[in-house]
Amino acid sequence: MHTTLIQELKRHIDLTEEDEQLITSSFRYKKVRKNQYLVQPPDIAYHEHFVLSGCLFEYYLDDDGIQHTLVFAPEGWWMTDLQSFLTKQESKYHVQALEDSELLVLTKEAYDKLLTRIPALNSYFRSLYANAIIGLNERLLNVLSTKVEERYLRFLKKYPQLENRVPQYLVASYLGVTPEFFSRVKSKILR
Amino acid sequence: MHTTLIQELKRHIDLTEEDEQLITSSFRYKKVRKNQYLVQPPDIAYHEHFVLSGCLFEYYLDDDGIQHTLVFAPEGWWMTDLQSFLTKQESKYHVQALEDSELLVLTKEAYDKLLTRIPALNSYFRSLYANAIIGLNERLLNVLSTKVEERYLRFLKKYPQLENRVPQYLVASYLGVTPEFFSRVKSKILR
Repeated sequence: MHTTLIQELKRHIDLTEEDEQLITSSFRYKKVRKNQYLVQPPDIAYHEHFVLSGCLFEYYLDDDGIQHTLVFAPEGWWMTDLQSFLTKQESKYHVQALEDSELLVLTKEAYDKLLTRIPALNSYFRSLYANAIIGLNERLLNVLSTKVEERYLRFLKKYPQLENRVPQYLVASYLGVTPEFFSRVKSKILR
Repeated sequence: MHTTLIQELKRHIDLTEEDEQLITSSFRYKKVRKNQYLVQPPDIAYHEHFVLSGCLFEYYLDDDGIQHTLVFAPEGWWMTDLQSFLTKQESKYHVQALEDSELLVLTKEAYDKLLTRIPALNSYFRSLYANAIIGLNERLLNVLSTKVEERYLRFLKKYPQLENRVPQYLVASYLGVTPEFFSRVKSKILR
């Protein structure tokens, strides 16, 4: 099951056989059930997760109990509360399994050690984080400037594999509107 | 004038004297006037900018001509249209000088060469990008979940040095509201 991860890394950087062994031994395989928490505030996010199958999602629960969904992580994506993971401060965001999922799990200590032992991984994560910035800029703009119809169409384009896997109330939470409003928008699009 | 940059880098990574010379020779010093463009869509963003003094800002101009401000970059910040810079695709975001500014400018070729010659810079940019992700997550949440009053207070906290330097219509654009609405909100806060 580490093959998927090694393949993903090798699409971006060169790895020796020794590197591959070190990586394989650094990640732990983990199965989680739908709805299970991977990060739950204010616990520290001790792990970075690479999604092999299934889907995780990250959200913020505000003081009024409203859930604001930041990002979905289907197969091949990474997911954690990055600030908590990198700084060992209390987490602010929930990370939860949207579906039964298979993960590869990396502790902060193993992450630091891997980056020291395999410097090319700095380059991999640099590119990964740069892509996340690009996606977040688009998402921010999306919320700042576009109509809910357009936001929904962009959601479908960004996550084509998730259309029928994410419950409607979560799509609404991702779009920043109430489920009722989203339902009206969707039926307008379908007509 | 390269000292500020070298100091910033050395707060995060070790550099040899040779590294420092290579870095110094890779960046070009540039003075820009208030309102001058550094990136203008659809031109490719050929340069990354490190701000020595003054302030740059990045925004998206939508089809209705409305300006949506994504981020401000005062002294010590980096700024470019990252997607365009990294992929050499057409830019989508404007980068403009908010004030007369002094910059250190790096081409994509020099950036790639520096990362190859000084691998520790991958680690520097990995951390820089990770911090940008953390900031963007907060900003996104801010727009998705909080009231304009709170957004404004967070803007002041994030950019304490900019309170009296950013015109009100740009603060409004950053907060995602009209200048008129922002003006009402602000007078309510001041009362």
